[in-house]
Amino acid sequence: MERSHFQEELERLKERLLTMGGLAEERVRMAMQALVERDQALIEQVLSGDSPLNSLHIEIDDLCFKLLALHQPMAADLRAITAAIKINTDLERVGDMAVNIGEAARRYISHPPVKKLVDMPRMATTAQDMLRGALDAYVRGDMELAQQVLDQDDILDDLKTQIFRELLTYMLQNPATIEPALDLILISRHLERIGDHATNIAEDVIFMVSGRDVRHHAADMQ
Amino acid sequence: MERSHFQEELERLKERLLTMGGLAEERVRMAMQALVERDQALIEQVLSGDSPLNSLHIEIDDLCFKLLALHQPMAADLRAITAAIKINTDLERVGDMAVNIGEAARRYISHPPVKKLVDMPRMATTAQDMLRGALDAYVRGDMELAQQVLDQDDILDDLKTQIFRELLTYMLQNPATIEPALDLILISRHLERIGDHATNIAEDVIFMVSGRDVRHHAADMQ
Repeated sequence: MERSHFQEELERLKERLLTMGGLAEERVRMAMQALVERDQALIEQVLSGDSPLNSLHIEIDDLCFKLLALHQPMAADLRAITAAIKINTDLERVGDMAVNIGEAARRYISHPPVKKLVDMPRMATTAQDMLRGALDAYVRGDMELAQQVLDQDDILDDLKTQIFRELLTYMLQNPATIEPALDLILISRHLERIGDHATNIAEDVIFMVSGRDVRHHAADMQ
Repeated sequence: MERSHFQEELERLKERLLTMGGLAEERVRMAMQALVERDQALIEQVLSGDSPLNSLHIEIDDLCFKLLALHQPMAADLRAITAAIKINTDLERVGDMAVNIGEAARRYISHPPVKKLVDMPRMATTAQDMLRGALDAYVRGDMELAQQVLDQDDILDDLKTQIFRELLTYMLQNPATIEPALDLILISRHLERIGDHATNIAEDVIFMVSGRDVRHHAADMQ
């Protein structure tokens, strides 16, 4: 495979990852909309619509494998492909989180609403922003943007804690809210994990661009 | 790098992954023991002891990267290394789950016990078995063992459901159990995720050995 063809294939890989990220994000958005609007039909759509994402997951993995096998890339190109292998896994798991949110939402709307959901959509928006930022950072090789994604994780963590405390109060005051509030707590954990996946991607980007490992504060340890 | 040297390095990679798997499993075991025995000191040990695992994570990633860059392996060897990249990520997350269990255990033991923990340790043992099985399957290239790991996932799922229902009953009957029972539910979710990571590894093994993709029932989709 000649160099220019390789670069084309690498661009295609990045384009596919962006498509997959968009799809994963859209599924999270749908799941949250279904939750907030208590839309049974939309929930079923989320629960049954995982296969385009799964097909993309396999396609991208295959693309990475072929790029490694046929071109035997070095240095920065190799880092871009090993990052893609990891990012692909993270995006597939974001899709799983959309399904998990859908399952919890289905149980949730079988009970009367516990409260008006305000922080929860805010948490979802933050997680989606992080995911989009991390993928843009990957495609552009933008370390600064990757760092911004890492910084956003605190917002998500604060919202999660706030949501938990508030729901606990409801549960303690009124046992009828226990079951549905539990599902809201689980949903907030799924959103937290989407943020974790965005964080993983941002860390991969920083490693890819700089060759510097920011995971586990590696610099402090070595 | 000549072939025999490459094979040596590949063996070393597998040995390091086994070490990492053992370490991750040990940390889960410690976290569960700390929970069951309400051992504050052991909990603190779990919460502060993540760095050997994190160092190994970076070391193994580096090893994979060097094997790809220096040797440019093909076919089965390439599949073994891309599998290692993914397995390494899964094992690191298992370590994160041990920390999460430790955090929930710390909160849990600040309340009176909700119940005698029987199913929870059983769930942990199953998840650990799956993890060990998946790693053995990787090192030996044993598809049958990998398939056994996939089959065990139902046990974990049943235990999770059973634990959830039982704890919900406690919460509904006695509001004083709500907070600690919530932590037990979260712990059962962390154990479920350890099973998910074992499942991911087993699927990677099947792909590595057979070149056949069993994720998302790929065979049915294509």
